[in-house]
Amino acid sequence: MSQPPELNCPLPLGQYERIVMAHGGGGQLMQQLLDRLVQPTFDNPYLADRHDSAVFESGGLRYAFTTDSYVVKPLFFPGGDIGKLAVCGTLNDLAMAGARPMFLSAALIIEEGLPIESLQRVLESMAAAARAAGVAIVTGDTKVVERGRGDGLYINTAGIGLIQPTTPAIHPAAVVPGDVILINGDIGRHGIAIMAQREGLALETTLESDCADLSGLVAHLLDVGIDIHCLRDLTRGGLASALIEITEAARVSIQLDAPAIPVNDAVNGVCEILGFDPLYVANEGVMAIFMPESQASQALEVLRHHPLGENAALIGQVTGPASPGHVHLRTAFGTERSLIRLSGEQLPRIC
Amino acid sequence: MSQPPELNCPLPLGQYERIVMAHGGGGQLMQQLLDRLVQPTFDNPYLADRHDSAVFESGGLRYAFTTDSYVVKPLFFPGGDIGKLAVCGTLNDLAMAGARPMFLSAALIIEEGLPIESLQRVLESMAAAARAAGVAIVTGDTKVVERGRGDGLYINTAGIGLIQPTTPAIHPAAVVPGDVILINGDIGRHGIAIMAQREGLALETTLESDCADLSGLVAHLLDVGIDIHCLRDLTRGGLASALIEITEAARVSIQLDAPAIPVNDAVNGVCEILGFDPLYVANEGVMAIFMPESQASQALEVLRHHPLGENAALIGQVTGPASPGHVHLRTAFGTERSLIRLSGEQLPRIC
Repeated sequence: MSQPPELNCPLPLGQYERIVMAHGGGGQLMQQLLDRLVQPTFDNPYLADRHDSAVFESGGLRYAFTTDSYVVKPLFFPGGDIGKLAVCGTLNDLAMAGARPMFLSAALIIEEGLPIESLQRVLESMAAAARAAGVAIVTGDTKVVERGRGDGLYINTAGIGLIQPTTPAIHPAAVVPGDVILINGDIGRHGIAIMAQREGLALETTLESDCADLSGLVAHLLDVGIDIHCLRDLTRGGLASALIEITEAARVSIQLDAPAIPVNDAVNGVCEILGFDPLYVANEGVMAIFMPESQASQALEVLRHHPLGENAALIGQVTGPASPGHVHLRTAFGTERSLIRLSGEQLPRIC
Repeated sequence: MSQPPELNCPLPLGQYERIVMAHGGGGQLMQQLLDRLVQPTFDNPYLADRHDSAVFESGGLRYAFTTDSYVVKPLFFPGGDIGKLAVCGTLNDLAMAGARPMFLSAALIIEEGLPIESLQRVLESMAAAARAAGVAIVTGDTKVVERGRGDGLYINTAGIGLIQPTTPAIHPAAVVPGDVILINGDIGRHGIAIMAQREGLALETTLESDCADLSGLVAHLLDVGIDIHCLRDLTRGGLASALIEITEAARVSIQLDAPAIPVNDAVNGVCEILGFDPLYVANEGVMAIFMPESQASQALEVLRHHPLGENAALIGQVTGPASPGHVHLRTAFGTERSLIRLSGEQLPRIC
């Protein structure tokens, strides 16, 4: 859980001769890997977009296409398992582009020796999550690797979604100064639930991952006419990293109001004991919504009437292009600090 | 490379308490895993189709959607690497549905410690293969797992392709008695090249994998008006397993002419020494084409003028529904034998 010291002062990727865990951590090192290696090599406007999904047009319709591999450890955790995560995560990436999910794929990399019963539980969990979203898993693949060349099970899901003609382009570039930032729920439950399970922490309350499919909630917001500018689910790197990424892509600044950001007491407790900052802890069912201030109270009303939005809150505002790349946090004491990208993440293999 | 004895007489999946390597081998055990666990759980007509891609309609157009994870070992081999394989393999799965590839995704699971230089070579190889096919890698994901929880690099690619309105439904169910079976090239080079590399065999000739993108060749056949009924690329389990699968899906029999099946001398040599049957060895750039006999000579002509079809041959015919599930091989000596599904594959982690 502690990072090697050199990661606190990241070197250019070129001086790393080998991949380290932080290259997959959703922080600065991963960003460098993407910026300096992946994007220049694959070089195309879709990737350069830095969106959760690629959006393309075909036959006069707009589609979203996305993929994620899941390597979460352990496979089963309070509130979910790798199967539910793999389905919800990809549904969410489609939803973040304003798309209604149509189809999913599922590709398994199984480590020799995995109990068939575990595989069955995970597949059932995937099927249940897909069914609940009204989406079919229509194509797949199965590979088996030798003992010691995997870790039970890795799952990749890819997804295709359709963007309704009336849906605006939901996208970091659509964020403008004055936009308010809402989140649909309290932050940090996924990361802390995983950590508690992994470390065998006996918590007084059972803390469950927030792992959930946000696509229905997004569709609902769009259906009632909320003019969403941008959506971002707060996965690896948490709220802070997601917002920093948006400020960089949209070339704006953000002012956050710390006391407004909902954090569960149990999450706060564990974070205080272990020295984690909930702003950087991963979520799997929480998103940031960028939208016009004029619709804020309507959107909050809609969110709070949805099971996945009970703890919805307005947490900040886009303040202008003056100091792009900056997220400023106003604390309860009236002081202010800038949020920076961590080099990696506090907890590897969270998703 | 030898199979545990019990796999020659497979038990129902229920009696396997844990996953074994053969569950990913493209043979009988993998089929059982899919038939008894994956398909009933995900239960939908697309999956039940048993096609290389799922085909769906949207906005009046037909699309193909497919995914594969790649765990080939070693990462680099004569004629290709895991990156080229991951791009070509998914392009081929789209092509097997008659689709022209539009977009690919790429998701990496990197083992901590992978040299950055290896990653770079693989990414460049993916980009080159995609570029050659005129397709962009538009979305992706990067995960890192600890040392000993992976094997250098696993790659998942998913793909979307568009099926032209004039293209018939290319599909096992379209296979009819009387159809001839063509292949575009000699078989077994991918599997034997991998094995030679893995085992450090010093061959007199350098044997290269046949790893190639077949989508251009398929488009060409369609463009000149060949009425293709079904296509299948001969990957895990080789020619024999692919044809057995088609006979089961289409409820037909197949008569194969052994002397007509092209096999490279070096492949034959290695197979003879090691007791492999080239009919079961994996290919990554060879496909079987089911089509009307009346167009056979035209199709052979077209194939042989294409760089990926120089060794094209007519190797057999669909003989009727009398004994479904059977592939009969007529040998050079005039004798006949039935091909059966192996329990796993001769060589794990071939793709």
